[in-house]
Amino acid sequence: MLGKLITTIGHAGAHVGNINVVGLDSQHKLRDITIYCRDQEHLNDILDMANKCEGIKVINIKDDVLEMHRRGTIEVINKVPITNLSDLRMLYTPGVASVCERIKNKPDTAWEMTGLCDRVAIVTNGTAVLGLGNIGTLPSLPVMEGKSAIFAEFVHISAFPILVDSKDIETVVETVTNIASGFGAIQLEDISAPACFEIEKKLKEKLDIPVLHDDQHGTATVTLAALINAMKRTKKEPKDCSVIILGAGAAGYAIAMILKKFGIGDIVVYDSAGPLYRGRTERMNPYKLQLTEITNKDNQKCDLKRGFKDKDVFIGVAQPNIVTSEMIASMARGPIVFPLSNPVGEIGIEEALAAGAAVVGDGRSINNALVYPGLFRGALDGRAKRITSKMLLAAAQELARLAPKESLLPNMLDRRVHKKLAETIRQLIQTS
Amino acid sequence: MLGKLITTIGHAGAHVGNINVVGLDSQHKLRDITIYCRDQEHLNDILDMANKCEGIKVINIKDDVLEMHRRGTIEVINKVPITNLSDLRMLYTPGVASVCERIKNKPDTAWEMTGLCDRVAIVTNGTAVLGLGNIGTLPSLPVMEGKSAIFAEFVHISAFPILVDSKDIETVVETVTNIASGFGAIQLEDISAPACFEIEKKLKEKLDIPVLHDDQHGTATVTLAALINAMKRTKKEPKDCSVIILGAGAAGYAIAMILKKFGIGDIVVYDSAGPLYRGRTERMNPYKLQLTEITNKDNQKCDLKRGFKDKDVFIGVAQPNIVTSEMIASMARGPIVFPLSNPVGEIGIEEALAAGAAVVGDGRSINNALVYPGLFRGALDGRAKRITSKMLLAAAQELARLAPKESLLPNMLDRRVHKKLAETIRQLIQTS
Repeated sequence: MLGKLITTIGHAGAHVGNINVVGLDSQHKLRDITIYCRDQEHLNDILDMANKCEGIKVINIKDDVLEMHRRGTIEVINKVPITNLSDLRMLYTPGVASVCERIKNKPDTAWEMTGLCDRVAIVTNGTAVLGLGNIGTLPSLPVMEGKSAIFAEFVHISAFPILVDSKDIETVVETVTNIASGFGAIQLEDISAPACFEIEKKLKEKLDIPVLHDDQHGTATVTLAALINAMKRTKKEPKDCSVIILGAGAAGYAIAMILKKFGIGDIVVYDSAGPLYRGRTERMNPYKLQLTEITNKDNQKCDLKRGFKDKDVFIGVAQPNIVTSEMIASMARGPIVFPLSNPVGEIGIEEALAAGAAVVGDGRSINNALVYPGLFRGALDGRAKRITSKMLLAAAQELARLAPKESLLPNMLDRRVHKKLAETIRQLIQTS
Repeated sequence: MLGKLITTIGHAGAHVGNINVVGLDSQHKLRDITIYCRDQEHLNDILDMANKCEGIKVINIKDDVLEMHRRGTIEVINKVPITNLSDLRMLYTPGVASVCERIKNKPDTAWEMTGLCDRVAIVTNGTAVLGLGNIGTLPSLPVMEGKSAIFAEFVHISAFPILVDSKDIETVVETVTNIASGFGAIQLEDISAPACFEIEKKLKEKLDIPVLHDDQHGTATVTLAALINAMKRTKKEPKDCSVIILGAGAAGYAIAMILKKFGIGDIVVYDSAGPLYRGRTERMNPYKLQLTEITNKDNQKCDLKRGFKDKDVFIGVAQPNIVTSEMIASMARGPIVFPLSNPVGEIGIEEALAAGAAVVGDGRSINNALVYPGLFRGALDGRAKRITSKMLLAAAQELARLAPKESLLPNMLDRRVHKKLAETIRQLIQTS
């Protein structure tokens, strides 16, 4: 009976996870079966098919993702229990006044006499959330909470979601500036390009704590880390490598910048209007213009299909299924193919391999959650005033080093990785 | 030896708390002795005297208050552990996208599909912190963290300090409005009068979540609760009671308003320029003007000393030691005396009792920490759009009811009190 059901689910194109017996009598078994499906429609199909199996009855359906997010995935707790009046009088009035006065007399002590040293604002205006786009602040909140949860779990950082309801650059900058003194660092998140560049730049100028747009620099750093190991495996020299990047938004811009700083030979960035070249006027902005000045040595103007020819590396941060097998097949020997668009890449990993890709990586394995926990932990521990490109390069190199043999990147569940990355960053701050 | 030391400490005017033996050999005992002293100078005196005791050596000094606040008194934690990739993929990408889309399609579901239902912003601009005054945002942070810790411990609310670096009313209002969608309620805190009235009013107009300035309404509510029981004990009828309030700032204004709404017979409010009366022009503002219209029936203009004559109730929310025994002695039979200024009252409790006070209460026992946890928990649970004066009156009456016999107020460490208050407020919201 179970076999019949599993086969049915398999035929419906869904994956089966854990199966647990949760009840039984002489005639029936009650099982809890975890199924991974694409969406509600997919689930409905599976349920239809299951209900048609004779002898099988679906009693209850539970969405584990929704259950996990119910009432949020983070909470604020007190670090010291309050069990008696003496606790209360030290935590709050009148005792707390002595802490306030200490900070008033020496503002610098606030760092260690409050939670500033562990506190990060995760700021979004909801304009570029995951692959969902401009969905607004409220629908983005579960993502911000998820990031906070990762911060808490891996590096004990108290990160808190701050939703800023404005698409206006100045308003976002001023709002964040007005509340920045309550935080030790600011992580910008899911803000659309090119506003994200301007917002980050202005906040960096105004604030003396680290400000980092994760969609740019987290993605760029982990991509470089994976690329370092991919180049080693394919015996490519960075200075001889030619890279095609698809996507000129937050991630595409930052990846191009970090690859350039790392010393990659040549980079050509494509957006939906074609390659960025000197002299292009269509759909430009100051940041794309800047890219034309430091990339595309030969000022290549050909279309995407021809753009792939003889390239060593492809990095996609654009949209699903826009790269073909032919494009991959036209690349140089031993091509490195990173279709990072999430959750569906520019080309499927299997398809890329079949077309001759030597090394592949997608948005699941090349994930910025490997970077930001350790990077921010290190920046806070070193009390950095800003996160520099030197720190990002060092983070990429450290992550490349920490990857187990045969892997492009370390396991992001391995706490030691985040700890080592933090320590590398902290040391870099203190020696520079 | 210990006796000698304790006597010495007692002579120095300090209180001794716990004494624990932490080490011993044949000749020495190492003890950890908790001492409550006023300030650093007081501690220095005690140490001098202790070091002069033969056979006693002070080895180490630890400030428990500073230790408690080191690295902050709150932290953000993840509610679900992240132990495998499946956890990560449900918490964060790609699984979280389904939660985002659900909220995008039905914004109302954000309340339960994120932490909004438990999340409060504690907002301050640091302009009226405790009795310390306008010390700025950073030095106020330990107070905001302490309030968050109380929220977490007593009612599992995730409250987070938001420091707004501006004294400009519009800037504070706009900043809070811009980030309000990430919270289920807003608690304003330690903002000076009269700006606090304007800020609260404007935010209430703009936002559809509860906004409450605790220094006004928390203080007013707990004061009324204590007064209800004090009037019972002294057999005074509210409508026959005359009250003198000293202080026309945030707390004084709100106390006058709630006493008026409760049905107290007459109220006269004094500030440092004398009584508020119709026709007064010196140091007025629209809020003081409003008070002259609803208080001071006889338009009393006499000085503070004569102002006490024949009053039933004194409530002080001004500054230490400005009320004399003579003033208390001139009050009506069975006077109720609440010198609430913190940490030192307008008159000492002992002095007030000696001068004939029938019932007394100071800022330690009449503390707004009895009100705000249950009030906000109830408001969130009932999903209130605002906190009304009806809810504040109900909270005061409930707290008065919950007080044990012989006490003006319930014990704020008693979790059941906060829970019952929350339930009362929730029910009030749902039936109105």
